[in-house]
Amino acid sequence: MKIIIVGGVAGGMSAATRLRRLDESAEIIVFERGHYVSFANCGLPYFVGGIIRNRDELLLQTPESLEARFGLDVRIDTEVVQIDRQAQTVSVRNMLTDEESVEHYDRLVLAAGASARSGATESTIPTHTLRTVDDVDHISAVLTSAAAASAVVIGGGFIGLEAVENLVHRGVHVTLVQRGPQIFTPLDPEMAAPVLDRLFERGVDVRLNTTVTGGSGNSVELSDGTSVPADLVIDASGVRPDVTLAQQAGLRIGAGGGVWVDGTQATSDPLIFAVGDGVEKTDAVNGSGTLVTMAGLANRHGRSVADSIAGTPEQAAPALGTGILGIFGLTVALVGWNEKRLVATGRAHRIVHTHPANHAGYFPGAEGMSIKLLIDAETDAILGAQIVGGAGVDKRIDVIAVAMAAGLSASALTRLELAYAPQYASAKDPINQLGYVADNLAQGTSVNLQWHELAAARAAGAALVDVRSAGEFAAGSIPGAINLSLDDLRERLVELPRVPLIVHCQVGQRGHTAARILTQRGFDVQNLDGGYRTWLAGTSNLVVSPTAERVLV
Amino acid sequence: MKIIIVGGVAGGMSAATRLRRLDESAEIIVFERGHYVSFANCGLPYFVGGIIRNRDELLLQTPESLEARFGLDVRIDTEVVQIDRQAQTVSVRNMLTDEESVEHYDRLVLAAGASARSGATESTIPTHTLRTVDDVDHISAVLTSAAAASAVVIGGGFIGLEAVENLVHRGVHVTLVQRGPQIFTPLDPEMAAPVLDRLFERGVDVRLNTTVTGGSGNSVELSDGTSVPADLVIDASGVRPDVTLAQQAGLRIGAGGGVWVDGTQATSDPLIFAVGDGVEKTDAVNGSGTLVTMAGLANRHGRSVADSIAGTPEQAAPALGTGILGIFGLTVALVGWNEKRLVATGRAHRIVHTHPANHAGYFPGAEGMSIKLLIDAETDAILGAQIVGGAGVDKRIDVIAVAMAAGLSASALTRLELAYAPQYASAKDPINQLGYVADNLAQGTSVNLQWHELAAARAAGAALVDVRSAGEFAAGSIPGAINLSLDDLRERLVELPRVPLIVHCQVGQRGHTAARILTQRGFDVQNLDGGYRTWLAGTSNLVVSPTAERVLV
Repeated sequence: MKIIIVGGVAGGMSAATRLRRLDESAEIIVFERGHYVSFANCGLPYFVGGIIRNRDELLLQTPESLEARFGLDVRIDTEVVQIDRQAQTVSVRNMLTDEESVEHYDRLVLAAGASARSGATESTIPTHTLRTVDDVDHISAVLTSAAAASAVVIGGGFIGLEAVENLVHRGVHVTLVQRGPQIFTPLDPEMAAPVLDRLFERGVDVRLNTTVTGGSGNSVELSDGTSVPADLVIDASGVRPDVTLAQQAGLRIGAGGGVWVDGTQATSDPLIFAVGDGVEKTDAVNGSGTLVTMAGLANRHGRSVADSIAGTPEQAAPALGTGILGIFGLTVALVGWNEKRLVATGRAHRIVHTHPANHAGYFPGAEGMSIKLLIDAETDAILGAQIVGGAGVDKRIDVIAVAMAAGLSASALTRLELAYAPQYASAKDPINQLGYVADNLAQGTSVNLQWHELAAARAAGAALVDVRSAGEFAAGSIPGAINLSLDDLRERLVELPRVPLIVHCQVGQRGHTAARILTQRGFDVQNLDGGYRTWLAGTSNLVVSPTAERVLV
Repeated sequence: MKIIIVGGVAGGMSAATRLRRLDESAEIIVFERGHYVSFANCGLPYFVGGIIRNRDELLLQTPESLEARFGLDVRIDTEVVQIDRQAQTVSVRNMLTDEESVEHYDRLVLAAGASARSGATESTIPTHTLRTVDDVDHISAVLTSAAAASAVVIGGGFIGLEAVENLVHRGVHVTLVQRGPQIFTPLDPEMAAPVLDRLFERGVDVRLNTTVTGGSGNSVELSDGTSVPADLVIDASGVRPDVTLAQQAGLRIGAGGGVWVDGTQATSDPLIFAVGDGVEKTDAVNGSGTLVTMAGLANRHGRSVADSIAGTPEQAAPALGTGILGIFGLTVALVGWNEKRLVATGRAHRIVHTHPANHAGYFPGAEGMSIKLLIDAETDAILGAQIVGGAGVDKRIDVIAVAMAAGLSASALTRLELAYAPQYASAKDPINQLGYVADNLAQGTSVNLQWHELAAARAAGAALVDVRSAGEFAAGSIPGAINLSLDDLRERLVELPRVPLIVHCQVGQRGHTAARILTQRGFDVQNLDGGYRTWLAGTSNLVVSPTAERVLV
């Protein structure tokens, strides 16, 4: 059997090596249009930043090492330009010599990945992308030879923020240009607020609701009318699936613009398979086609396609879209759907915000995190989560991702028996705590209200009761709130107006106890979810630049 | 409704506070025979070590704070001495005044915990336990007033090893006395080997197969005939459920010696409930009664018992026995059953050992870990796991614990979509890698052999082939192995004897590729699970003291 693989990085190379292990006799050719195969694409920003110092560290394999160990015929600098499905051939072009040739295949695997989607289309200034080894070589050349002091990064997603961090790490002043009103849009706005804070703390000039309109020499013009210095411009506006070949070959393309595949990674042509960033996955929440451009899925599906070709196909698991980002010491992690998407699709949901520490508070060095859990209002299924904070964020998102994959309900998080010693977790782990809150909501033991629902509830006549201590109240409070400390609540009930009440504390826990006391005494009570802290994150928003004050929206 | 709770720490206090939130009108009395309630028992060793500096940090609540916030009637220094089930009363004794009184209950919750099981019974020397605030006060007094320079710790379990670490941290020379041939017996021996190494590296005098036989003044006599200095002796031989009250009251006791409860925490008397270390849980692997003395379960079941009493009972999840230990910078974590127990009960199983890094190797600071996964040979269910290493161990044990709780198969670990960026994980996370190996075993794509099966296989005629590089081979190898590097294997097949082969590399991965090459060429091949590293850990064993050389067993 002769198998041709188009693309020699994550998905393509996983397919090739697994195929070899399953079949010593197969002929396996890998075509890669770039000069490198199996490189550490997720490490590229950190090479720019000098965190990864040795360029060779990025190059995990070479055509020679792959030939020696796996008997693979890897041809770099070679582009597949056309597929002839009838003849079962591909036309390939050697990019160094321009020679063209034709190769027959019994099975074809497309792993061409995605290409950068330019966000600077309004302007004609030269920009760099950050996708390949060549990209970082170019960027590094600018940074070292020109002693670049300033950069503009377009787009505040995963790659954009990683680029920002690494440029700052190299001493470069960075302006981050974001088209919309929020950076890192996989998060909901109140969860993105601490990320924005951190960027400003580190001196990044973040411009929201802004685009690049032009530029010349070492500066860039922005849609807000200003001009900012830019020895370097990185365009990290995002990626789109590279479906050129598939489209030309008449393969089915999904509604989201990626190559359509079934659960075994087969395309609409049963002899052609596809994996990686160019392919649509099946969304775990609603079963629709979805574009999730994560290395883990590419590797996983690469292995899977080898099993399909070897005759032992299995169905892929739906994609959760688990992702994680490190940005200036903050860890930002997410899985599944966010509130914005649930609202946009009209899916009934419950929300839980908590602000736990990563381990027992009495053990030195505890770090805080904020968690948002999204729950199906009818089934109690977990629909998504977002976590922002310090140590232990990566652990909790993985636990939630596994719970989602296994179909555990939000209330079932109470029962997870997670490893506890005081330097690692709490006896009631943040995950168990999420479950407790979710369970109270599911049982009706508690009713909560979101930060963005507060204004309307108060306008309709509800009173807001802050059950924190007088000291906490004095240090910052929601305008118009009545302060009545939880420990005094039972004695001072008469002071409360007989109107619907919204109670809150700092993070939601004392608010819950207060709500229970009041509910049992006949009050109509809701607990402000996530307390003062979530409200503050949700209602504050920096508008234009670090020089502007934070204003309440 | 009047509810009496016996014991005011983890389980008892979780029950009390949840009960109050569910029922403002209930009368809730908590009797605690100690002087402290709701203290941080898992933090006690770290207060001894000076890691937790402020004693108040250990005292999370006081009777006064619990009265103010939760309206609880908490009576410390008060022991419940008898239960009269007919009359629904308890007899209580004030331990300061010796006054006795009787209290009626509608519901009774037993949360008396466990008591120390002495391992120094052969001797009459004074020992300390490490279970309560009083214990650490006594130990701290010895350490400071007598300027103690040496200590003996009896028992190398969780508490014993935490005590060792903290005493060493205070500059005390420690002898660890372990009755059997292995420290930290929840692990299998090859997984405990790095822990023993670490103890010796830090200067701890570990005595295996040894007991304390006597002592006088500042020294202790051991069963090996030696005498060691001991200004302080801590007995951490383990705990047994404190079932005195339950037994006197005629409540059913389980086969393991703990109070029997059903899934709602009800004892054999439907008005009496029990939770915590004194109670038997249901084992998640075989459904038997089991003693798991972990704070997480105590808290969880405490909350659950409140729901039962409030009329909304739910069934407890079976206990996995997830646990974690920090010891001199190593993290040791486990869940479910170990190999020893599977062998002892005759349960057919498969085993996977891996030695991954916590995150991408090309990103600076990667730390190694060793993982052992135990799998049901018939159903592919995960039966247990052990992990020893640095950063990221806690995350992986939690992921496996959730997978077990949710009933995911070992092969399904391949599909988990875990958060990946190079500073947090690998695109193929260690968990996915475990799944890949497990899947290969389940499919028959790979056959492995354990370190302790090697000698017998070779005696039966198998040849051992080390497929590492010549340099690795020269740096240390298994006696009698043939070295034939993986990358040369296809060319040098003729050099191999036509007998059953056992291949191995450093950790198992190249061995797998070698096995696939050889199997497809007609060889009878097994891959040595976990490679040279697991074999070395399993076959090396320190016998008596740090002065002795490691010897192969």
